Amino acid sequence: DLSRDVDEKLIQEFIAEVDNVKIQENLRELTRVPHMATTAGDEATVQYMLKNWQDMDTGLDASWREDYRVYLSFPNRDKPNNVSVVSAADTVVYTVREKEKAYRSEQDDPEVVQPYAAYGPAGEVKGRLVYANQGKASDYETLNATLSLTGTIAIVRYGGAGRADKAINAAPFGVIGVLVYTDPYDINDGLMSDENETYPHSWYLPPSGVERGSYKNHFGDPLTPYLAAKNGTYRIPVENITGIPPIPIQPIGFEDAQALICELGGSAAPEDWQGSFPCSYNFGGPGFASTSPFNNSDVTLHLYNRGELRDSANVMGVIWGSVEPDRYVIYGNHRDSWVHGAIDPSSGTAVMLEIARVLGQRVKAGKWRPRRTIIFGSWGAEEFGLIGSAEYAEEYVSKLSQRTVAYINVDISVFANATLRASGSPTVQNVIFKASQQSNLTRSQVNIPGSDSVSVYDNWIRYSNRTSAAYGNIPNVGHMTGAGSDYASFVHYLGITSLDISYTYDRSTTRARIYPAYHTAYDTFDYASTYIDPGFTSHQTVARTAGNVLIRLADGLLLPFNCSDYAETLEQFLSTAAEAFEAQLVANGISLEPLKAAVKRFRTAATSLDRTIHNSDLANDTPLRARMINDQLMLLDRAFLDPLAFPNKYGYRHVIWASRSSNVATFPGVADAVEKARASGRKEDWAQAHKHLSIVTQAISGAAHTLAEAQR
Amino acid sequence: DLSRDVDEKLIQEFIAEVDNVKIQENLRELTRVPHMATTAGDEATVQYMLKNWQDMDTGLDASWREDYRVYLSFPNRDKPNNVSVVSAADTVVYTVREKEKAYRSEQDDPEVVQPYAAYGPAGEVKGRLVYANQGKASDYETLNATLSLTGTIAIVRYGGAGRADKAINAAPFGVIGVLVYTDPYDINDGLMSDENETYPHSWYLPPSGVERGSYKNHFGDPLTPYLAAKNGTYRIPVENITGIPPIPIQPIGFEDAQALICELGGSAAPEDWQGSFPCSYNFGGPGFASTSPFNNSDVTLHLYNRGELRDSANVMGVIWGSVEPDRYVIYGNHRDSWVHGAIDPSSGTAVMLEIARVLGQRVKAGKWRPRRTIIFGSWGAEEFGLIGSAEYAEEYVSKLSQRTVAYINVDISVFANATLRASGSPTVQNVIFKASQQSNLTRSQVNIPGSDSVSVYDNWIRYSNRTSAAYGNIPNVGHMTGAGSDYASFVHYLGITSLDISYTYDRSTTRARIYPAYHTAYDTFDYASTYIDPGFTSHQTVARTAGNVLIRLADGLLLPFNCSDYAETLEQFLSTAAEAFEAQLVANGISLEPLKAAVKRFRTAATSLDRTIHNSDLANDTPLRARMINDQLMLLDRAFLDPLAFPNKYGYRHVIWASRSSNVATFPGVADAVEKARASGRKEDWAQAHKHLSIVTQAISGAAHTLAEAQR
Ligand SMILES: [Ca+2]
Ligand SMILES: [Ca+2]
Ligand SMILES: [Zn+2]
Ligand SMILES: [Zn+2]
Ligand SMILES: [Zn+2]
Ligand SMILES: [Zn+2]
Repeated sequence: DLSRDVDEKLIQEFIAEVDNVKIQENLRELTRVPHMATTAGDEATVQYMLKNWQDMDTGLDASWREDYRVYLSFPNRDKPNNVSVVSAADTVVYTVREKEKAYRSEQDDPEVVQPYAAYGPAGEVKGRLVYANQGKASDYETLNATLSLTGTIAIVRYGGAGRADKAINAAPFGVIGVLVYTDPYDINDGLMSDENETYPHSWYLPPSGVERGSYKNHFGDPLTPYLAAKNGTYRIPVENITGIPPIPIQPIGFEDAQALICELGGSAAPEDWQGSFPCSYNFGGPGFASTSPFNNSDVTLHLYNRGELRDSANVMGVIWGSVEPDRYVIYGNHRDSWVHGAIDPSSGTAVMLEIARVLGQRVKAGKWRPRRTIIFGSWGAEEFGLIGSAEYAEEYVSKLSQRTVAYINVDISVFANATLRASGSPTVQNVIFKASQQSNLTRSQVNIPGSDSVSVYDNWIRYSNRTSAAYGNIPNVGHMTGAGSDYASFVHYLGITSLDISYTYDRSTTRARIYPAYHTAYDTFDYASTYIDPGFTSHQTVARTAGNVLIRLADGLLLPFNCSDYAETLEQFLSTAAEAFEAQLVANGISLEPLKAAVKRFRTAATSLDRTIHNSDLANDTPLRARMINDQLMLLDRAFLDPLAFPNKYGYRHVIWASRSSNVATFPGVADAVEKARASGRKEDWAQAHKHLSIVTQAISGAAHTLAEAQR
Repeated sequence: DLSRDVDEKLIQEFIAEVDNVKIQENLRELTRVPHMATTAGDEATVQYMLKNWQDMDTGLDASWREDYRVYLSFPNRDKPNNVSVVSAADTVVYTVREKEKAYRSEQDDPEVVQPYAAYGPAGEVKGRLVYANQGKASDYETLNATLSLTGTIAIVRYGGAGRADKAINAAPFGVIGVLVYTDPYDINDGLMSDENETYPHSWYLPPSGVERGSYKNHFGDPLTPYLAAKNGTYRIPVENITGIPPIPIQPIGFEDAQALICELGGSAAPEDWQGSFPCSYNFGGPGFASTSPFNNSDVTLHLYNRGELRDSANVMGVIWGSVEPDRYVIYGNHRDSWVHGAIDPSSGTAVMLEIARVLGQRVKAGKWRPRRTIIFGSWGAEEFGLIGSAEYAEEYVSKLSQRTVAYINVDISVFANATLRASGSPTVQNVIFKASQQSNLTRSQVNIPGSDSVSVYDNWIRYSNRTSAAYGNIPNVGHMTGAGSDYASFVHYLGITSLDISYTYDRSTTRARIYPAYHTAYDTFDYASTYIDPGFTSHQTVARTAGNVLIRLADGLLLPFNCSDYAETLEQFLSTAAEAFEAQLVANGISLEPLKAAVKRFRTAATSLDRTIHNSDLANDTPLRARMINDQLMLLDRAFLDPLAFPNKYGYRHVIWASRSSNVATFPGVADAVEKARASGRKEDWAQAHKHLSIVTQAISGAAHTLAEAQR
C-alpha cells in the first residue's frame, strides 16, 4: 500500500514494549569490561551488537561490520606517563598518581587505560609551574602580562576552551607543557572528600578521577581528511596533522592539582580564576612559593603517548523499507568508551539495542516493515574524534547525501534523570514535541507536585523553554552548532537533518559541567544504576521518545518536517545579526538588505509549501505527489551546504549550524568574520564579513528556491 | 497518466516540423547587428527571445530575463588600442590595422568592436620583438635558451596554449608584451590572398581578420567566485583576479603578423615553429634583422582596455512538466557574440528557437506537455568566460543539483556541414545514437556514393568512430573535459549529465583549427548562409537530433541513460592509467589495486541495475518504481563530484571529466599528479598522486554504491 502512513497503534505498542529491564541488562553486558576503541573489550561489544542484530527472532534484516584503518593515540603500558615535582637538587619531591584510586573492582581492571591526552605528543619537559585558569588565549595573555611564560608548565582546568586548544593557545607564549584537571567547583558543586562526599558516596567525582579525552580539534581519522580510511587510502604524513597539541599535555586528578596549585607563588589570580580548593589560586612566580616545600622546584612531564594505526569497526544494521527503500532514516550511537563507559556511550547503546529489538521482532514476525529503510549505526572510535561516523560519511557521501531523510543521534542517553533534552534542525522540532507528548513519565520520575502522571513534554517545558513567535511558550530545542557527538558528520558535512536526544539535569540543583564520572574509571554500571538512573526509567523514556521519532520519520507518508519552523530560526538569526552588527556593517559600506530579502523569500516559500501541503490529500493523490514534497523537505538542510565556506574548519559545510567563536547567536560565518573585523579594523577583514554575508544570503535564497513551486 | 512514456509519433512529427527556413529567418534576425554582451545589440536579442518565447501561439509556458552584474572588459572607443613599430629615432615606421578590412557593410558597422584581448591589462610597453611560436611555457623556454627575453615583446600564434596562458607563460621570462595572431597554416590551409582565396571568395579568414576572445582562464564572473553576481554580492578586489594576462597583450591579423615576423632577425626557429608565410620564421635578434627596414626598431603596444561592471541578461523559458515537474531537462545556448556572431553563437540560438517553437506550439495548443519540466536558457556573456551560465549555476546550485536530469548544450550548431559531432557523459551515448538514427539527411547533404538516403548516424560513423567492447564499431562521442562552452558549469561544477551537439568538418579536407571567421567581423549571416550551411539543412539536422534527445529525456518513463556505458569508460581510463603509470606508481609504493577494485565494483553495480531495469515492467509497476531508478540514473554523475579535489581549478569538481594537462587520456587528477611527480621526482608529488588516486577511487566506489541495491 503506497499511501500507508504512520500507524498510531504501532506507536502505542512500541511505547508499551520498550522495557527498562532489558535496557538495564544491555547495559550490564556492554559494560562488563573496559571497551576503549579497538581493544578486546571493544571487539566484545562488536560481537554483542552482531549477536543482537542478527538474532532470528528479534534481529534486523541484516547486520554487518565495517572496518576502517584509523590513526589512534595511546599511552605506553610499559612506560607510563609520569608527572612529578623535582627539586633544584633534582630529587623527586612529589609524584602525581599514575592511576585513579580503586573503590571497586572495576577500577582495578588491568584494561583501565591510564589517564592521558589522546593525540598529545610524547616528550619530556621540565619547568616552573604557572596557573592559567582555563587555558583560553585570553588567559595566557593575562598571565603573560605579569610574568614571562617562557619555559613554564601551565596547569589549567577543564572548561572554557577545547582540550587541544589549552595547549595550542599556550605554545605561542613559550609554555612547554600543560597539565589539565577538573576543578571541584566546576564538576562537584565544590565537594571534594572521598570519605563521604564523592563516589561511591554520591555521583560526584573522586579526588583522583581524571577526565580522559581526545585532544584533537578536527573530527574523523586525522590521517585521511575527506577520504574513508581504508587499506590503500592515501594518508597525510603524521607531522601534518593539525589541531592537536604542539607541546606535552597530561590530565590529572584534582587531588594532585590541589597539591600543586596551592603551593604556587606569585600574585593571586583574579577572582574568576579561583576554584574550590581551600587556598588562594596564585599565578605562580613562575613556580612555587618561597614558603612552599616545593620552593625552587620544577614540574616535569614525562609522556610516552604514541600514535598507532588500528582497525576500528562500525556495526551496521538495517530494516529494509517497503515503499521507499531508497530513503534512509539513520539512528546512531557510538560503541567505544574510555573505560567502562556505562553512561558514555553505553547508556545510549543500551537504548539503541532496545529500540532495535522492539522493531526487529515485529519485522521478524512479519507484522511490520517501515515505509523507508531504517539504518542503525554503532560507531567505532568516537572518543578519538567521531572517527567511525566520519569515515562512514566519507565513504558513502554520495548515497547518504542523496537519500538520507534524517539522522537521530543518542550518545549518552541519560546524563541525569530530570528532563528530556533535545537539539536539532528546526524542521524536526514538531516531531520531537509530538513524540514527547505521547509518553508519560513513570510515577517514580514525576516531580510535579500534586500530579502522578505527566507527559515527557509537560515535564520538559518546566525545565527548558522559550517563546516562539508561532507557538508561544514551548520547550527549547537546541541548535547543533558544535561537533560534540557523531551527528557532526551528518549535519555539518552531509547537511542531513539531524537531532540529538537525551535525558539530563535539573540545572537548578547542580552546576556540574557534565555528569562527574565522565571519561573516568568511575563511569561504571554501578555508578549508572546507583546514581544516574536507578530503575532505568529515564533510559526507557529516551528509548520511547527517540524510537517514536524514528518510527514517524520512517513511516510518515508525508515527512513530519516543518519548514516554517526553519524560517522562524532564520528570522531570529537575522534580527540578532541586525541588532549586533548592522550599524557597523553599514558604516563599512556593507548592506544587510540582501540577507533580509533572502530570509523573507525563505519565509514566503515556506508558507507556500505549507499551504500546498495543507491543501493536499496525499493519501488519495498519486504516490509521486508525496515523494516530490518529501524530496523538498528531505533536501532542505542540504541547500545550506557550502563546501568552501569554512576552509579552515574541517568538515563544516552547513552555513547555518557551523561552529562559532562569537557569542552572538547568529549565522556563524558572519558572526565570526564581523568580530574579527571589529577587532582588527582591517579593510580585508570587513571584506571577509561581506563575503560571509553573501555566502549565507545565497544559501538561504537557494534553500527558498527549493521550497518554492518547482517549475521555475 | 503517470506511466506515460515517449510518444514515437510525437518524435516523428517533431522531426517533420523542424523547419530549415524558420531557422534561417531566426538567424537573419539575430544577426542584424553586432550583439556583444551587454550592448544595445545584445538587448535586441533579449527582446527577440522574449517575443518568441512569450508568443501566444508558439511560445513557452513562461519566459523571463534574469540579470547579473558582471565584470567585463572592453577596449576604449575614444582611445583605440595601437600597435606600432617605432624606429630608434622614435618615428613610427609601421602601424598595425586598427580594424578589420570591410568587404561588406557588416564590417563597417560602428558597433563592430575593435579586436582586443578581453581582460588583458591596459598599458604602454615598448621592446624588441621575438617570435615565440604558440606561447607555451616550453616555447618560451626554448627561446630563452638562445636569447634574453627581458624587455621583449613576443609575437605568438593561436593554438597550443590558452589565450591568457600565452601571456601568463611569457611574463616570468621578462617578456613585457604579447601579440597574438592566427597563422594561415592553422586556419586557412595555408591560403592568404583576399583577392581570390579568402572571404568573401571562400570561407577562409581574410588577412586582416582577428580572433577576439576572453583572455581569462576561469569561467564565470571574475569578481564573484562561487557567488551569483547580484547587486550587493561580495566582490573580490579587481587586483585579486587570477588567470588573466599580467602583461599587455593584443591580437592582430596575419597580414600584420607577416609584416613583423618576416622582418625578424636572429636564428631560424625550429621546423615546427614555421608557418605559412613565405619567409623564414626567425626567433628575433631579439628584434628585427639588420637587413630589415625595421632594423633597430622596437614594437610598441598602447592598450587601453578597461574593466566595467555591466548588467548581463540570461533569458529563461520553461515548459512545465506534467508528471514530474520537479525534474528538469535544461537546454542552453549563449546569446552574446563578439561581432555579428552568425555561427558563434547565433547558429545555435536559431536552432534553439526552432526547437522551442515546435514544442511550444504543441503546448499552447494543449496537445502535449512533457513528463518533466523543460528549461531553456539563453545565456549572456559567454564570450567573456561562460559568465551567464556560471552565475545561473551559482545562484540555483541547490535546486539544479537536486533536480536536473540533464543539460543539453548547442552553442555553435554548425561549424561545417559534413557530419554530426557529439560529446557528453557516457550515459547519454545511447540516446544520442537513437536520435541520430531517427532522421535521415536531406538529399543535398548526402555524400555517400550510390545512396540518396542516409541517417545522421550512418553518416556520422563514417567520419568519426571507435571500437566499443560492448557494441563494436560505433560513432565516437567525445569527452567533456574542458570548459569550451556553457556546459562547463553544469558538468564540472554541478555534476549534471551533459551533452553537446553540433555539425562539423570533414577533417580530411581541412586542418582549420575552427571555422576561419570565428570571433571575427566576418562571422555574418552572409558568411553562414554562403559558406557554412547554404540551405540550412545542417542546422535542421542539429535541431532534429538535439530536439529528439530533449524530448526523450523529458518524456521517458525510464530515463534513457545507460550506466554500463559509464563502466566501459571507467575501464578504459583504468587500463590507460595502468599502462601509463602503474609500474612507476608501484615503484613509489603506491598500489592501483584499490582503483581496480572500485572500477570492478562499479561494473558489477551497473550490470545489476541494468538487470533490474530489464526485469522491470515500469509501465505497470507503481510510479515510485520508475522514480527510484531514475533518481539513481539522474544522480550518477553527481556522485563523481568532489568539491575539494582541484583547489586550483575554479569550478572543477567532477573527478572524471575535469580538465587535464597530461596527454594520457585517463582520470585527470591522477594523470596530472603523476606527470608532475615524474618530472620532479619529489616524494610530496608522489604523495599527491596517491591522494588523487584515492580521491577517484572513493568517487567511483561511491558512485557504485548509488547504483547498487538501495538497502545497504
Ligand atoms: Ca577519513
Ligand atoms: Ca559568480
Ligand atoms: Zn559519547
Ligand atoms: Zn565521550
Ligand atoms: Zn560560442
Ligand atoms: Zn565564442
